[in-house]
Amino acid sequence: MEKTMKAVVKTHEMGAGAELRKVPIPSVGPGEVLVKVEKVAICGSDKHRYNWEPAMGKPNFLSPIILGHEIAGKVIQVGPSVTRTKVGDLIAGETHIPCGTCLQCLTGDPHICHNLKVLGLNRDGVFSEYVLLPQACAIPMPEGIPPEHAVLLEPMGVAYHALSKVRADGNSVLVAGCGPIGLMSIQLAKILGASCIIAVAKRRFQGEMAKKLGATVVTGPEPEEIRRAVNQATGGYGVGVALEMSGSSSGVEASFASTRKGGEIVLVGMPKPMNFDFQTYLVRKEVRVHGQHGRRMYNTWVELLSLLKAGMISLADYVTADLPLEEFAKGFELASQAGQIKVLLTP
Amino acid sequence: MEKTMKAVVKTHEMGAGAELRKVPIPSVGPGEVLVKVEKVAICGSDKHRYNWEPAMGKPNFLSPIILGHEIAGKVIQVGPSVTRTKVGDLIAGETHIPCGTCLQCLTGDPHICHNLKVLGLNRDGVFSEYVLLPQACAIPMPEGIPPEHAVLLEPMGVAYHALSKVRADGNSVLVAGCGPIGLMSIQLAKILGASCIIAVAKRRFQGEMAKKLGATVVTGPEPEEIRRAVNQATGGYGVGVALEMSGSSSGVEASFASTRKGGEIVLVGMPKPMNFDFQTYLVRKEVRVHGQHGRRMYNTWVELLSLLKAGMISLADYVTADLPLEEFAKGFELASQAGQIKVLLTP
Amino acid sequence: MEKTMKAVVKTHEMGAGAELRKVPIPSVGPGEVLVKVEKVAICGSDKHRYNWEPAMGKPNFLSPIILGHEIAGKVIQVGPSVTRTKVGDLIAGETHIPCGTCLQCLTGDPHICHNLKVLGLNRDGVFSEYVLLPQACAIPMPEGIPPEHAVLLEPMGVAYHALSKVRADGNSVLVAGCGPIGLMSIQLAKILGASCIIAVAKRRFQGEMAKKLGATVVTGPEPEEIRRAVNQATGGYGVGVALEMSGSSSGVEASFASTRKGGEIVLVGMPKPMNFDFQTYLVRKEVRVHGQHGRRMYNTWVELLSLLKAGMISLADYVTADLPLEEFAKGFELASQAGQIKVLLTP
Amino acid sequence: MEKTMKAVVKTHEMGAGAELRKVPIPSVGPGEVLVKVEKVAICGSDKHRYNWEPAMGKPNFLSPIILGHEIAGKVIQVGPSVTRTKVGDLIAGETHIPCGTCLQCLTGDPHICHNLKVLGLNRDGVFSEYVLLPQACAIPMPEGIPPEHAVLLEPMGVAYHALSKVRADGNSVLVAGCGPIGLMSIQLAKILGASCIIAVAKRRFQGEMAKKLGATVVTGPEPEEIRRAVNQATGGYGVGVALEMSGSSSGVEASFASTRKGGEIVLVGMPKPMNFDFQTYLVRKEVRVHGQHGRRMYNTWVELLSLLKAGMISLADYVTADLPLEEFAKGFELASQAGQIKVLLTP
Repeated sequence: MEKTMKAVVKTHEMGAGAELRKVPIPSVGPGEVLVKVEKVAICGSDKHRYNWEPAMGKPNFLSPIILGHEIAGKVIQVGPSVTRTKVGDLIAGETHIPCGTCLQCLTGDPHICHNLKVLGLNRDGVFSEYVLLPQACAIPMPEGIPPEHAVLLEPMGVAYHALSKVRADGNSVLVAGCGPIGLMSIQLAKILGASCIIAVAKRRFQGEMAKKLGATVVTGPEPEEIRRAVNQATGGYGVGVALEMSGSSSGVEASFASTRKGGEIVLVGMPKPMNFDFQTYLVRKEVRVHGQHGRRMYNTWVELLSLLKAGMISLADYVTADLPLEEFAKGFELASQAGQIKVLLTP
Repeated sequence: MEKTMKAVVKTHEMGAGAELRKVPIPSVGPGEVLVKVEKVAICGSDKHRYNWEPAMGKPNFLSPIILGHEIAGKVIQVGPSVTRTKVGDLIAGETHIPCGTCLQCLTGDPHICHNLKVLGLNRDGVFSEYVLLPQACAIPMPEGIPPEHAVLLEPMGVAYHALSKVRADGNSVLVAGCGPIGLMSIQLAKILGASCIIAVAKRRFQGEMAKKLGATVVTGPEPEEIRRAVNQATGGYGVGVALEMSGSSSGVEASFASTRKGGEIVLVGMPKPMNFDFQTYLVRKEVRVHGQHGRRMYNTWVELLSLLKAGMISLADYVTADLPLEEFAKGFELASQAGQIKVLLTP
Repeated sequence: MEKTMKAVVKTHEMGAGAELRKVPIPSVGPGEVLVKVEKVAICGSDKHRYNWEPAMGKPNFLSPIILGHEIAGKVIQVGPSVTRTKVGDLIAGETHIPCGTCLQCLTGDPHICHNLKVLGLNRDGVFSEYVLLPQACAIPMPEGIPPEHAVLLEPMGVAYHALSKVRADGNSVLVAGCGPIGLMSIQLAKILGASCIIAVAKRRFQGEMAKKLGATVVTGPEPEEIRRAVNQATGGYGVGVALEMSGSSSGVEASFASTRKGGEIVLVGMPKPMNFDFQTYLVRKEVRVHGQHGRRMYNTWVELLSLLKAGMISLADYVTADLPLEEFAKGFELASQAGQIKVLLTP
Repeated sequence: MEKTMKAVVKTHEMGAGAELRKVPIPSVGPGEVLVKVEKVAICGSDKHRYNWEPAMGKPNFLSPIILGHEIAGKVIQVGPSVTRTKVGDLIAGETHIPCGTCLQCLTGDPHICHNLKVLGLNRDGVFSEYVLLPQACAIPMPEGIPPEHAVLLEPMGVAYHALSKVRADGNSVLVAGCGPIGLMSIQLAKILGASCIIAVAKRRFQGEMAKKLGATVVTGPEPEEIRRAVNQATGGYGVGVALEMSGSSSGVEASFASTRKGGEIVLVGMPKPMNFDFQTYLVRKEVRVHGQHGRRMYNTWVELLSLLKAGMISLADYVTADLPLEEFAKGFELASQAGQIKVLLTP
């Protein structure tokens, strides 16, 4: 095997952008696996880091670091004590690296580990030819799932975890934001029996996809048009569930404004600090709000894979571009354009 | 208006069977509504009472009493203080009549009222031309639902309430028993995102309907064939959820035997006393078991109607016969025959 | 019986303050009871209305209106259809008046009725000699509870409802704010098995009371001293549960900052709009936040009365003043002073 | 260090009884720790195995095997990859040995692992001088907990886990059975705010201890006296929560008979197969029943230790005898006698 690999590396000094560099292929230790990357995907949070936007991730951002966290690949080497996966397995990567010994890890919540590391943020990411993962973060795929679908399960898991926190069935659901995870939430809400799905989309293409994936109603992002759509669909009560997937303050505002008394809200997007009226939106309405970061390890994976194996989820529509790893810069550019959902890179 | 009406009446002296009698039309009091019956349906528990079987309902059985509890009809008169429904409304009947003042009524569980009365058991039922209902038990239907669908919502509500107690999505679900409520559970489990539905059916027609309504696998009632089907479908773990809808001891046995460690079971059928091994089936497996009697008032109705209005539930397949009220005897006979699901009576 | 009564009345024109007026004694209708007031108590929200502060309650504020909502009194007359209480009963008043027919009322949440009315805000309150209540809002007291304790159960119910939303047992609990409901929360958290209670108090007397009622640690309101106290008590993780009872933006900030990843927060106080960082405090921590308005009808009352009857709650320390109704102005003044918890008025 | 140790060994050939033998001290592998035993305790399930009673544990019973599973001891050696504990730590033993890779292990329920091993049943137990444990089952104790208390936390954890499945606060709780875990449940129910605790005790000494630890009412085991006690304490409704800790069919019967409609039951004791009326006791009452096997890993330990550190639990009363390991036969004899709660053995 070669000793070096190509990787998309970023340093603090770069500002926006990143470089393709040759770096050493990491070597496996106990409980670790080495993965040959088949497909990676660009996520909104990668874009923030790539573009050096203040919104997220800078405080713990290592320098230099390999970017990226959504990955599907083949296990090519396993370290001592690896029991959950084996050489030859196709795996999808779990982005959250737990310490295994903190309070959260010991009480069923390793995905929000007190000492959490995140691929591509404070540990080398996946935009490279090979990736080293702790076995806890290498999820073996069932037969018949191709890498270009496996690479979508990390963001799909975010959508599924959000829906697991609430009851969608027989309920009205607002999805604020029709980026990839918003669209996936719409598809899943439909599969889980939501009786009415209101999608808030900024772009025409997103609205069309939302419709295709199961939205009952699509509305633009203006507060007044959202209000009208929600009132009409819910007889003036507001929705039972709102899922905030946009990461914008207007999406947060819309989610709270649209939810009925006693309803539930899941906040997944990562907005900047904003002005907020807790009294009107949260206290007097007695809503329940769930912050969310990532996926359950591994309830989310188990249930999502079970839907996938049953043929209930179609992943055909999400990949709108697939470029060679070397063209990452073009990939990042594409990923922000209208008409795109997920942009893949192939090493 | 006339003063008397036709009704299917039973007394203790009759043994099996019942009589068509002329009885007075009841008059409305405060909080009550008088309903002109459009459709009624025969339930398994009606059959027990009609056939004077020891299994259920005798202890509190009034004599004489009008039989039946599943009803759709038009409100034709309302008493003082009625606010939830009005003359002209098509309503479906809620079978459980709560007292309104006991601990359960005051804490959100009127359907299991400490002083519960049940239509056709310890209060006059609905197999008649007119029925008196407390407004709390007359559920107004949305536009566009015909009486022959409205009359099915009481048993459909039983199925929905069972599914509300668990998480079907991304989960494997065993449904023991393919009578009407078993079949409805299969349809609903599918709508709510179950990834695998194993139906236990005694009769070929039931198995075919189970398949049509969404079952992934259909098995006969022999313990060994159920075991094999469950193991194959779940990789040897057992199902995450079992719904007991047969009311037989073998159905109870199968539900517990088929459920994996940490799984959940809902018991809706009403078996006779039986031998049971709590240690093996319940304690060591740490399963959770939900007894169930009826439907939430009114969460079940609200959510079920919301699915119905959204066009997500088809009720076209359940009614297999519709006879004049006078032919109730033939109806009861039919209701036990192969090839039948729900038998309606029309006054 | 006389036809008029003394009442503390406020109009929009008054600005701060109110007047003692003679007004007609209301007459009972169906489902209503007339109550002779024994004790009323001044709540923080009454102070806002009395002082004409912008924070709360103006939008729906009727003019003129009788102020006040915490009440204990004797039922002296019942209207038709009253079944839950009878003449001679000592009752405590439930402040939230539900409509009985909206979605929330029908699905177990009448306390957050879509058409909610609140005593002393958009329906005449209780600072008067007689009060008309719907029977749904007149809670009969068990034997042996004196009016000066019964009048405290409405705010105590707020504290109990907050604790019902979380698991305090074996957990660390921050209580932000040591007004009456904050202090009651401390007492209840102790009774429910919290292993560590950190109280945030502004005033020395509040801190002493917090200690007496069960706080493990008392800290002042500076962010840095709260941070230090929480870190020391929780080994740097943060508390499992935070209860915001202050209604200040600093209390909200402290509650979120003090809660560990995966923890829970109940917001009961009613802050003004404020700047808030959802990403850091809610999304990345995956906390769950419960807005709260009032008490469950009637789970809260049932459980709280059951603790009270068992002698597990002492109410002796909360009443720090009891004045004649006529001296309401002095009462409002006292209620804002250090050294006071609850100020009662007696007609 | 020596190469052999004393151990209480049982073979299939022995029938009742066991032998003190010299056996090799096990050697540590990766992820394992070697513990020098300080205290072990005799549990009811040990008695079944020792006495060769058919009730439990025979099917998987290895032969020969070292008996016993409740242990406190000092870590004297750690294998590679051990991160959660270190040489010198006092640990308490977790009895359930999970495989780490099955569905239950991956979804937060390792204590009911699909491939569960149990100390003293299908893996060598703890009645010996040294014990080998996977680090996952060696729970480090906080400062200041003596071994004679640490050894009680495994059964105390069973009691705490049972109470975690329900809400005891402001609720009425029946505890059927006043063996060690029954008594511990009473103490914990009191600490968690139960407003009424009804203890069912067979022996006078158990009843006295129940009272001392917090029972409101003590009753004997006759169905009629239980019925009367429950009705009197709950106004005829039945208890909100029943905890079955006796493992007898009469205890199971009493738990179901005593629970009100909509109540909850936890079954911890391990009864033999029995006749049971699901219809009356479970379906019509819509109760929820939780089977339970062991403790959460590690929520139960975390919360229980947090109560212990806070000084809220007294363990002084449970140990009624402490004998040298060699006198195990006398220990087993004592453990069945009136007046005993926990019998310890010291190597």
